Amino acid sequence: MIQVGIIGGAGYTAGELIRLLLNHSEAEINFVFSTSNAGNKVSKVHQDLIGSTNLVFSSEINPNVDVLFLCLGHGNSKAFLEKHQFSNRTRIIDLSNDFRLEADKTIQNKTFVYGLPELQKEAIVNANYVANPGCFATAIQLALLPLAKANLIKEDLHVNAVTGSTGAGTSLSETTHFTWRDNNFSYYKPFTHQHLGEINQSIKQLQNSFESEINFMPNRGNFSRGIFVTAYTKFEGSQDDVKSLYQSYYKDAEFTFVSDEQIHLKQVVNTNKCLIHLHKHNNKLLITSIIDNLLKGASGQAIQNMNLMFGFPETEGLQLKANFF
Amino acid sequence: MIQVGIIGGAGYTAGELIRLLLNHSEAEINFVFSTSNAGNKVSKVHQDLIGSTNLVFSSEINPNVDVLFLCLGHGNSKAFLEKHQFSNRTRIIDLSNDFRLEADKTIQNKTFVYGLPELQKEAIVNANYVANPGCFATAIQLALLPLAKANLIKEDLHVNAVTGSTGAGTSLSETTHFTWRDNNFSYYKPFTHQHLGEINQSIKQLQNSFESEINFMPNRGNFSRGIFVTAYTKFEGSQDDVKSLYQSYYKDAEFTFVSDEQIHLKQVVNTNKCLIHLHKHNNKLLITSIIDNLLKGASGQAIQNMNLMFGFPETEGLQLKANFF
Amino acid sequence: MIQVGIIGGAGYTAGELIRLLLNHSEAEINFVFSTSNAGNKVSKVHQDLIGSTNLVFSSEINPNVDVLFLCLGHGNSKAFLEKHQFSNRTRIIDLSNDFRLEADKTIQNKTFVYGLPELQKEAIVNANYVANPGCFATAIQLALLPLAKANLIKEDLHVNAVTGSTGAGTSLSETTHFTWRDNNFSYYKPFTHQHLGEINQSIKQLQNSFESEINFMPNRGNFSRGIFVTAYTKFEGSQDDVKSLYQSYYKDAEFTFVSDEQIHLKQVVNTNKCLIHLHKHNNKLLITSIIDNLLKGASGQAIQNMNLMFGFPETEGLQLKANFF
Amino acid sequence: MIQVGIIGGAGYTAGELIRLLLNHSEAEINFVFSTSNAGNKVSKVHQDLIGSTNLVFSSEINPNVDVLFLCLGHGNSKAFLEKHQFSNRTRIIDLSNDFRLEADKTIQNKTFVYGLPELQKEAIVNANYVANPGCFATAIQLALLPLAKANLIKEDLHVNAVTGSTGAGTSLSETTHFTWRDNNFSYYKPFTHQHLGEINQSIKQLQNSFESEINFMPNRGNFSRGIFVTAYTKFEGSQDDVKSLYQSYYKDAEFTFVSDEQIHLKQVVNTNKCLIHLHKHNNKLLITSIIDNLLKGASGQAIQNMNLMFGFPETEGLQLKANFF
Repeated sequence: MIQVGIIGGAGYTAGELIRLLLNHSEAEINFVFSTSNAGNKVSKVHQDLIGSTNLVFSSEINPNVDVLFLCLGHGNSKAFLEKHQFSNRTRIIDLSNDFRLEADKTIQNKTFVYGLPELQKEAIVNANYVANPGCFATAIQLALLPLAKANLIKEDLHVNAVTGSTGAGTSLSETTHFTWRDNNFSYYKPFTHQHLGEINQSIKQLQNSFESEINFMPNRGNFSRGIFVTAYTKFEGSQDDVKSLYQSYYKDAEFTFVSDEQIHLKQVVNTNKCLIHLHKHNNKLLITSIIDNLLKGASGQAIQNMNLMFGFPETEGLQLKANFF
Repeated sequence: MIQVGIIGGAGYTAGELIRLLLNHSEAEINFVFSTSNAGNKVSKVHQDLIGSTNLVFSSEINPNVDVLFLCLGHGNSKAFLEKHQFSNRTRIIDLSNDFRLEADKTIQNKTFVYGLPELQKEAIVNANYVANPGCFATAIQLALLPLAKANLIKEDLHVNAVTGSTGAGTSLSETTHFTWRDNNFSYYKPFTHQHLGEINQSIKQLQNSFESEINFMPNRGNFSRGIFVTAYTKFEGSQDDVKSLYQSYYKDAEFTFVSDEQIHLKQVVNTNKCLIHLHKHNNKLLITSIIDNLLKGASGQAIQNMNLMFGFPETEGLQLKANFF
Repeated sequence: MIQVGIIGGAGYTAGELIRLLLNHSEAEINFVFSTSNAGNKVSKVHQDLIGSTNLVFSSEINPNVDVLFLCLGHGNSKAFLEKHQFSNRTRIIDLSNDFRLEADKTIQNKTFVYGLPELQKEAIVNANYVANPGCFATAIQLALLPLAKANLIKEDLHVNAVTGSTGAGTSLSETTHFTWRDNNFSYYKPFTHQHLGEINQSIKQLQNSFESEINFMPNRGNFSRGIFVTAYTKFEGSQDDVKSLYQSYYKDAEFTFVSDEQIHLKQVVNTNKCLIHLHKHNNKLLITSIIDNLLKGASGQAIQNMNLMFGFPETEGLQLKANFF
Repeated sequence: MIQVGIIGGAGYTAGELIRLLLNHSEAEINFVFSTSNAGNKVSKVHQDLIGSTNLVFSSEINPNVDVLFLCLGHGNSKAFLEKHQFSNRTRIIDLSNDFRLEADKTIQNKTFVYGLPELQKEAIVNANYVANPGCFATAIQLALLPLAKANLIKEDLHVNAVTGSTGAGTSLSETTHFTWRDNNFSYYKPFTHQHLGEINQSIKQLQNSFESEINFMPNRGNFSRGIFVTAYTKFEGSQDDVKSLYQSYYKDAEFTFVSDEQIHLKQVVNTNKCLIHLHKHNNKLLITSIIDNLLKGASGQAIQNMNLMFGFPETEGLQLKANFF
């Protein structure tokens, strides 16, 4: 059993990690660090865990754990690693956007590998430090990587995505107030969402010729979990060709599947899956992609990366019962 | 056109008052006072009003308006009136619970009348100062008043009520966070909700012999608007008798109606109505009652009271299109 | 008081018409025709109307009413008018898509005018027969008409829109089942929605040179009312220029307003308004547009058209209190 | 690996059974019988299972499976067993209400045991035929059994419960239409819900002296999953006493826990848990109880019963990650 430490234990992604790790046969939670909750039962914050664990939030950090998950706000992972030392054998998986881009990937003597298994499983297997992808970034990349791999993105992309409220974290704001968000719909950061950086980087990694523009419209949906993406572009090939392309690209993927039927968000909620559907209309290819933003879009993928880094079966702890309803 | 002032203009109840007054043929908004928003357009906070009004929040209070609505947090109305003077002819309608109980009804030389038209319309017509009832209190009293009037409440009452999130006001808290409340259900303040005081007071006013206990369980629903009440008690009479009793009691009520069919919350959302349904089962009488907590439970009833105090038709400005869906 | 007849009285749009007409000072409901509900109280189907009306569904049609609203399923209006005769002075407003396109606009000796006031108010004023626009079509056209009028649509348009469940009508289906739709998100009819016909027709009417493609992705949201549209295209001009253009185009519009701030759906729910927001990013112009699909997208606009056809104030009966929460 | 057969495979409870069994280490799905879907992939109906299974609905029934789950409408299990024969060693778990009451428990030579582990684990361990409890019945019994066991229910009980839409099954009806149910609240079957029979039977089984009335108000909530119960009665003992009583009663329960803090529904959604909270106010004891209606209230408890009947660990396949958000 490897020993796991979690930093920033009171947030949504830490909660999901704890839920997953409690059922993981190869890993054990060594500590959950939270300054604001030190001494409290973990189940006081993550209240579904009553009856499942007696873990208590810790004010101490064990620098010798086998793997450390950083569940901190963007910018804070870097600051944290500058202040705290860990053993050389401690692997680190960071859920923030601090180390995802090539320009940011190194801190001290640590170099982070971008942790999208469908992009570069081998690199993750060999990594000591992994930058876990963003939630929108995961859903959008999984919609586009097979095309990029085949050098087929030649025209601008038009991407619309809707996220649940958990994407905004635990903080309270006007747009996370129930009265505001209930039965509401809105958009934010049109064309400028911060995940565009990692999306472009990965596509370029697979398709060196890529020079198209990704027009990305993020939206706030009135649901808690999940990301729903539609992406389309001008495209020459047939629907059958593109379907073969995607099925081939994802043939060994443990969690990403191509659906013959149209998809809807709740097919993946509370799972680590990504479902993709392909539809050709005239000269356009429409790709739909769905994930649970907290699982495949965050903590589930982090565990998937941990499994790869430690040589565990990739699906260990991640064969989750969907909520579906 | 009477001149209206509103204090505490950024909250939900003030927003509803403004929405109603903009369509009222006999009243005109003179000022909307808000310290935090002074100088801003009212439509910057109450954003549905874009295109409907160019009103600006004021930092000044006009002490000579015809009627003043206090939309302040509980306890703050009293403090406000101790600090500010108004003309003798300025009528005041307070939406807090500061002046609802007999023991609290007087401040300086002002005596507040409890503003539930179905209880005491004449008193309101003659009042200069009105304490607007609480939202739960309105829904529950309207379910019980006809029984009390007939001296028929002889056994304990069992009342369960569910409120929408607007009942908790604009403040952000764990239980108003969308992620928490979406698809959730919970209860609070069992048997001790502060509205029990005014409910008991009104029932006692109609039925001097009343000595039963009101067991009141308030709940938080995952919707924005509305209160749904079920109340039952042991009861001797027939369903037909009790139906006649209620129809007779409410025969002149402009907004309270007895439904022959079972009722559901959305029948009254965005209206000033109360619907009541009666059901006798063996020795139990079940009374269901529904209102919109912000209208009949707050601002709609406040305008109804204003109409009565100024001799306007009771329904003026309150014939609202239901949202229904 | 003009006399109004409604055909297809049990559906959502008929319900909204009835709600609006009950508060209309110049119109009176003469009959509400419904074969399936004949003899029943209207408030038995449109249950928020308990206490508001004693109207009964009729099995008879009065052919001499001043105005007739057809609230029938698509294809059924044509069939209905082929079977039933009305007086020459009976004006007809059809809410289906049977007569919206130039190719379809004439039946017998009746020629229907496309009823979008922001496109052609004069034509409506003079019309005896009006084809009321589709809901998506209204929201999207209001987002695009000012550009078209200025001959400025030169590149392809990318339109994403989300509709509430009322858009699908009263019929029960998998995608309107609460268990399926609650907290879900999905799309349908990509690039091929039937409203594209009327949208293209209106744009072409204003901008003869229009040859661009409208890429339209419709989505099903997990809310009841409303349509949220984002539309973008490559665009040369400045944000200020385009804002002036829109403000100028809509300066006399009674219900369509340009918002300086980003908009969210609930600003217009239960109103006849359309709010539009403009945002320029690099070489793209993003236009956001929101309406209530049942009001500005159906019955509200139908009443607006009736007001224009009969010379009533355009806003009569349509100054509605928003639901907002 | 025991072989499992499922009858009525297209419904919600069958879907949940399949989800659970796919991750169960001791059981294997032998067939999923569905007349309406025979030949189709299971993942065509239970669409979250894309990528998880290639199972196909069967039109054949294997009479030699180790265990058979009946997921049929109430009344249909009896009819089914009258028509179909199974091997003597085939154990049967019925999810309908056909065999829950003493008067109904025998069919042919099969006698069904009421399958609430917290009531009678030993009887289930030794049973060949189990009648799985109702969803409301489970939540309410778990709230009351410890009191009954101690012979402490001496006064009438007042029980209010809210259920999600999955409780109504897959059938389409007015009250399961999204447009109707979204942001709505309603009640049904006041004082007469069919689960009262099994609840009274179990309480009487533990407390022979029980003669009180259970006043049960069921409600429809606007959420998909879960049951929230409040139950109160006059009670002499202290809060500490009653808490000890409940903790003692549930000390060996694998899924039922007493929470020191107030509880809210989403703590148990998508788990097999029941959480209970106790609150004493004056002479009243308030018990709150929450379950997921499809898991502890149906399919999860069915698997729990299977585990007990076959000597598997009681929690096998049931350590589920909560949805929580």
